[in-house]
Formats: sequence, structure tokens, C-alpha cells
Amino acid sequence: MNINDYVVEKAKNANLAVRKLGTLDTNIKNNALIAMAEALEKNKNNILKANSIDIENAKKAGTTTALIDRLTLNEKRIIGMAEGLRSVAALPDPIGEVTGMWKRPNNLNIGRIRVPLGTIGIIYEARPNVTVDAAALCLKSGNSVVLRGGSEAINSNLEVYKTINDAAIKAGLPKGSIEFIDITEREAVNILMKLNKYVDVLIPRGGAGLINNVVNNSTVPVIQTGVGNCHVYVHSDADLHMAENIIVNAKTQRPAVCNAMETLLVHKSVADKFLPKLGDTLRAIGVEIRGCSETQKILPYANPASEEDYEIEFLDLILAVKVVDSLDEALDHIYKYSTKHSESIITNSYEASQRFLKEVDSAAVYVNASTRFTDGGEFGFGAEIGISTQKLHARGPMGLNELTTIKYIIYGNGQIRK
Amino acid sequence: MNINDYVVEKAKNANLAVRKLGTLDTNIKNNALIAMAEALEKNKNNILKANSIDIENAKKAGTTTALIDRLTLNEKRIIGMAEGLRSVAALPDPIGEVTGMWKRPNNLNIGRIRVPLGTIGIIYEARPNVTVDAAALCLKSGNSVVLRGGSEAINSNLEVYKTINDAAIKAGLPKGSIEFIDITEREAVNILMKLNKYVDVLIPRGGAGLINNVVNNSTVPVIQTGVGNCHVYVHSDADLHMAENIIVNAKTQRPAVCNAMETLLVHKSVADKFLPKLGDTLRAIGVEIRGCSETQKILPYANPASEEDYEIEFLDLILAVKVVDSLDEALDHIYKYSTKHSESIITNSYEASQRFLKEVDSAAVYVNASTRFTDGGEFGFGAEIGISTQKLHARGPMGLNELTTIKYIIYGNGQIRK
Repeated sequence: MNINDYVVEKAKNANLAVRKLGTLDTNIKNNALIAMAEALEKNKNNILKANSIDIENAKKAGTTTALIDRLTLNEKRIIGMAEGLRSVAALPDPIGEVTGMWKRPNNLNIGRIRVPLGTIGIIYEARPNVTVDAAALCLKSGNSVVLRGGSEAINSNLEVYKTINDAAIKAGLPKGSIEFIDITEREAVNILMKLNKYVDVLIPRGGAGLINNVVNNSTVPVIQTGVGNCHVYVHSDADLHMAENIIVNAKTQRPAVCNAMETLLVHKSVADKFLPKLGDTLRAIGVEIRGCSETQKILPYANPASEEDYEIEFLDLILAVKVVDSLDEALDHIYKYSTKHSESIITNSYEASQRFLKEVDSAAVYVNASTRFTDGGEFGFGAEIGISTQKLHARGPMGLNELTTIKYIIYGNGQIRK
Repeated sequence: MNINDYVVEKAKNANLAVRKLGTLDTNIKNNALIAMAEALEKNKNNILKANSIDIENAKKAGTTTALIDRLTLNEKRIIGMAEGLRSVAALPDPIGEVTGMWKRPNNLNIGRIRVPLGTIGIIYEARPNVTVDAAALCLKSGNSVVLRGGSEAINSNLEVYKTINDAAIKAGLPKGSIEFIDITEREAVNILMKLNKYVDVLIPRGGAGLINNVVNNSTVPVIQTGVGNCHVYVHSDADLHMAENIIVNAKTQRPAVCNAMETLLVHKSVADKFLPKLGDTLRAIGVEIRGCSETQKILPYANPASEEDYEIEFLDLILAVKVVDSLDEALDHIYKYSTKHSESIITNSYEASQRFLKEVDSAAVYVNASTRFTDGGEFGFGAEIGISTQKLHARGPMGLNELTTIKYIIYGNGQIRK
């Protein structure tokens, strides 16, 4: 079979499965998720064996330590995957919820009911746990899923896939509910991106290169996740102790993730007082500071910030700093450079907080809190499949609800249109 | 200026306008809409003059009567456009609505607030009223709009655009809130479809060729509107008098629209009794019937239905008919051929109605009513910008709410992530 036929068949199978999967009883879905968890735990030795092949190949290929870490499974991580499945099983089923129903003057009763999107394609890199996490969320929300993991984790992904898929089918999910494309050539992705007939949405998860490729080439609708150039703005009247706590947390608690802070904006009236102490704290943790000329006057050790430093996501212990004259200048800076992910203002001013909440056009806008909370778990969604940085369909952390659509159900008694 | 620079500038202007437009007071938006209505009425002679040039050109080009009718403006239609603006002004402002707010265990208060999508591109054909209707809905929901009408209506569109844009700016909307691309070369559309940086969503309105071109080539997210291959299924226990009324309405009240019925499915146990009387009624209205072999046995005058007849949207006084053995066969037929727009079951069976509502995966699923109700006005949304036939973001009739997205606003008091 050639690659095209193979990918089409996988997508077609998944699409066929939805018809049954989408109307399945909640209990059957939950039992399947629990069975998948048990199967993972039972088969952990084979999974670790497959994973060791991927790790060996990665080492031979000279892969970075960070990437190898992401690729590596161990018993704890497998148990974590199983626990993830059980926690998705414990979440409420979004499907069938009627989110509104109203009566029209002609006595038609029109209701809006939550239904699955259909078939979701997930294109991802490195982490084998995505195979499990993505499948769990898609299945719970009644969607079939076509998984396409990266070549670097192919052995791990395949073993994990076989384990959970067998368990799911034994537990009563229709065949095709979880499909895995084990072709590592890029062509497989190119084909998948054009299968509008069978795939309802694609969610790329990985680096900027992967995401841009999917956004630019897919005719299937895409939910874009990814880049977070997140800002914290310290207003003139901020509680500076709180500001320091929040900045240290947002910048250093986990610098490589999208909700980590990248740029600090400080009102000029507090810069002299605030920056030296903050700078000492950040330097002690190993953070490099790149500042505007004002910042450099206050912190002589700061490197100069280039235009690019304000544009990019460092994902590292580097912080861009700019002293601003006003809230307006802070808003202008955010408008110009933000990727519309998460921004926070530290202030005690009612007016400044309200303007910031209203005027900043980002998925998550905070007052007096760390940007690190932009996360499905932290928002109370139970789990997340990613953080959408686009505006269409889903914005911010995507939980089960964001993997659904609606349909209208209309109860009539013979109404015709005049 | 070359075409690329021109289109980019229009989109950039619109994008810049959103920053102010998106947070504008409701009163200012409403006053602008009312001022636009008044301006249209005042300037009707110039609009009619411009329209007569388009009509003349269309006649010279041998355009069909139907298309010329769609293109034609008269005083009544201009007043209709003005009334449309006033009725959008009277609708509630969706922007700023908090659709949920909850407290997390760490005392963060997280709210979900409705905000504009940003800049919406509308690519449309023929009808000059779209210039007004689309602008009204986009502006009311805080979005700027880039309009690109077809070449056949260019003079009418331009005059209408100038009229409403001048009035909108005088009434306090930021410049760029409504942009119009008056380049009729297709290249302008090709450029617009790639401007992800400035355009948040594209909504094509027109024939299948236009829509497919946008879906297949746009990197900007698209909301697909369009094709409705709508089914009515008459179950074994249907009230046959009601069934006939509904079918006549769904097929003949306005056959050229997407929510008109295209295929009738009849349970075999009532086909003998039902079809002859229905056939007589439909023939009297001029409907051509294309049936399966069973249908042809009962209605000797019926033409044979080909596979294609079940697939396409006639948009005409033609009805495909199939006699089915069971509800299951009806559901299978709909699953295979439906474009997932609108389907209706006529039945008195509780079980059949519930299965139909649950198992049919269409934007609007009816029991005992005409498919013609799938419409923003009929659903109670006040107005509509189109009917989405995709599942992402919006499904079914799109009113003001469907032109919005959400952001999360988070009230903290120093929270950091552990």
C-alpha cells in the first residue's frame, strides 16, 4: 500500500468510528479509559524496552539532553500516564449537555446540545505521553483520533498505542476510535493535512516549525497552540514584594513552557527602587537580564535588549526588561510584541487593573498573579490538550469542552415557514 | 501602489482599528449603525445610479436573469438595508458579557468574557446588501471588517461602502473599522487569504466555487458556509397530513436556499398511501420527482434518481425520493449523503424522534418541522451573517455571538504557582 492509501485508510477508519463513538454511553467510555490505564501498567516492561530503542537511536543521532529527557519513559512516567487516563475517566462527560433551550413565538423549541467535533488529528513531537493524553481527551469527548507522533519516539509511541488501543477495543470502543500513523516520512503529514473529508480538526503540538508547517499547509481546520511571549507589567503603585514574588515565579519556576514570562515592563516611578533588588534575586537564580537603556542605567550588569529580544520567546533563564513612562506605554508595548497568550499587571489601582483587563487582547489577562496559571488543570478543567493561541473556536487552555461542537435540536409539531 | 501593498494596507488599517473599536461603548456603536442607515436613505439616488451601471454591464455580459435580480437595487431594497442596520443597532451588545466566573482553591477568580474576534474578512458575490449586512454585524460585535465584493457589483458596492463608511467615521468609529477592497482581480483575494498577521477569520459568502477556493487556499482560519443537502424522513407512524405540509414547505417555499429540502426518505409501510397524494401536490407546483425504483413503482411519472441526485443540492424545484425499509436505513442514507446542514424526521414515535435527534450529525436536527427554519432570524438571533456548515467555532446560523471569541480575566492577590 502506498503512503497516500495508508493515511487515507487510517483517517477513514477513524471517521467511521465516530458515528458509534459519538453517541456511546458515558460508562462505556469511562470503563475503556480505565482499562487502557490498567493495560499500560501491565505492559510497562515492553513499553520501556521500546523506549530504550528510541533513546539509543537519539543518542546515536547526537540529540540534545533536553530532548532525550522529554523522550525518556520510566516506570513513574508510565504510572503518570495511567493516572492521567483515570483522571480523564473521572471528569464529567461533556457530550449531550444542553447548553440552552428556548421557545420561539411559533412554539418551536430550539436547543443547543454539545456533540463531538468528529475526528481529531494530533500531530506531535518527542513526548510519548501525548499518545495517551491526547487519546484520552479525544475519546472522553466522543471524538476519534488520528495520532501522528514524531520519528524520534516511534518505537515508544507504537508500543503505547498498541497497548491502549487493544484495551479500548476490548472494552467496547469501536475499531478506529484511535488510529496511529506509523509512517515517519513527512509525506504522511502532508496527506493528513488535506483530508477534509475525514478529519474535522488538526491540533499540532510541538515546536514552532511543526506548528507553522501545519498552519500554512493544512486545508483541514487547525487549532494553533504554542508561542507565549508573556509580559508582566509592574505599575507605579504595585506592591513591590508581591511583584518580585510573581516575577520570580513566572520567569524561573519552569522557564521552558509557554506560560512562562519573557518580558518585564516596569513603570519609571518605581524602577529605581524595584529593579536592583529584583535583579539581585534573579541573578542569584541564574537569570540573564537584557534591558532597555533605562534598565541598564539602573542595572549596570544588564545586557542591552535588542528589538528581537522583545519579540521572541526565550524559553530559557533570560528576561527582557523595559522601563515605561505610563500604563499606556505598557499597553502599547504589549500590543506590539505580545503573542496574545498571557499577560499580568501588578497594581493596586482599580482603574489600571480594569484598563489592563479590558484593553489587553490576550487569551489570559491577570491582575496580581503569575502568568504560569494559564493551564487547563490550574483553570479547573481537569486536563488540557494544549493552549490555543488563536481566536477561532477555542482560546487559552483547551479542556474537554473545547473538543466539542454543538448542534441544534428542534422540537416541532408541524411548523412550516411562512 | 501594487496590489499586494494595497491589500496589506487595507487589512493593516482594519487590524489597527480593532484596538479601539473592540472596547468602544455600546452607545457609540449603535449610534454609528443608525447614522449609517440614515446615510443610505439620504444617498439612495447615487446608489441607484451606481447600481444601474452594474446592471447595464451585467446585461452586456449576458448575465442570467436570476443573477441580475440579485444584483439589482431599488428604493425598497435600500430601505431594507437601512432597516437591517437599525435592527442590528437594537440587538444586545455581545461584547463584555461574562459567560462564567469561578473561584479556584487558591482564591484566583477566573472569568470568561466575550470579546471581538478582531478583523473579519468577508469575500462575497453579487448581492450589494452583503456590504451593509456584514459590516453591521461585524461592527456591532466590535470587529473591524475587510470587505471584498465581486466584480459584477463593484460600482454599487463602492457607493454603498463610501456612504456607510463616511457615516460610521463621523459617528465616532475609528478609521479602518470598515475597509473595502475595490480591486476586482482575483489576486486581491489570494493575498487576503494569506494575511494571518492582520486578519483573524475569513467568511466566504457565495457559490461553491468561491467557497472551495477560500477553504483550499486560505491560511487565515475560515468559517465555511454553504451547501445544504437537506433531508426529510417520513417515519412509519407519521401524521401524513403534517408530513405533506412540511415537505411542500421545505421543498417549494424558497427552493434556491441552503435550508430547502433536497431529498425525501419515506418508510416503506406508508409509501403506497403517502406518495401518490404528495406527488400530485408537488406536481401541481411544478416539482420534478426523481425516485428510486420503489418510488417509480408508486409514481410512474417519477424520473429515475441517480447516485448524483442523492448527492447534490438541486436549489431548484426537483426532489429526490427514496423508499427505505427502516429508520436505520434512513439514518444510513443521511450519514452517507448529508452535507450536515438540516434534517427533519416526521414521526409520532418517541423512540424514533430521540434516535434521530441523537444520531443525525447535522447543524440542525428537527422533529416534525420544516428544515426552512435553519436561519438566524428564525432561531431568534436577530440577524445572521451566514450558516456555518463546519464544526469548528460556529455551527448552524451565525449571529452576533458567533462573531466573538472569549478571553479569560483572572483576579489574583499575589498567587504564584507551586
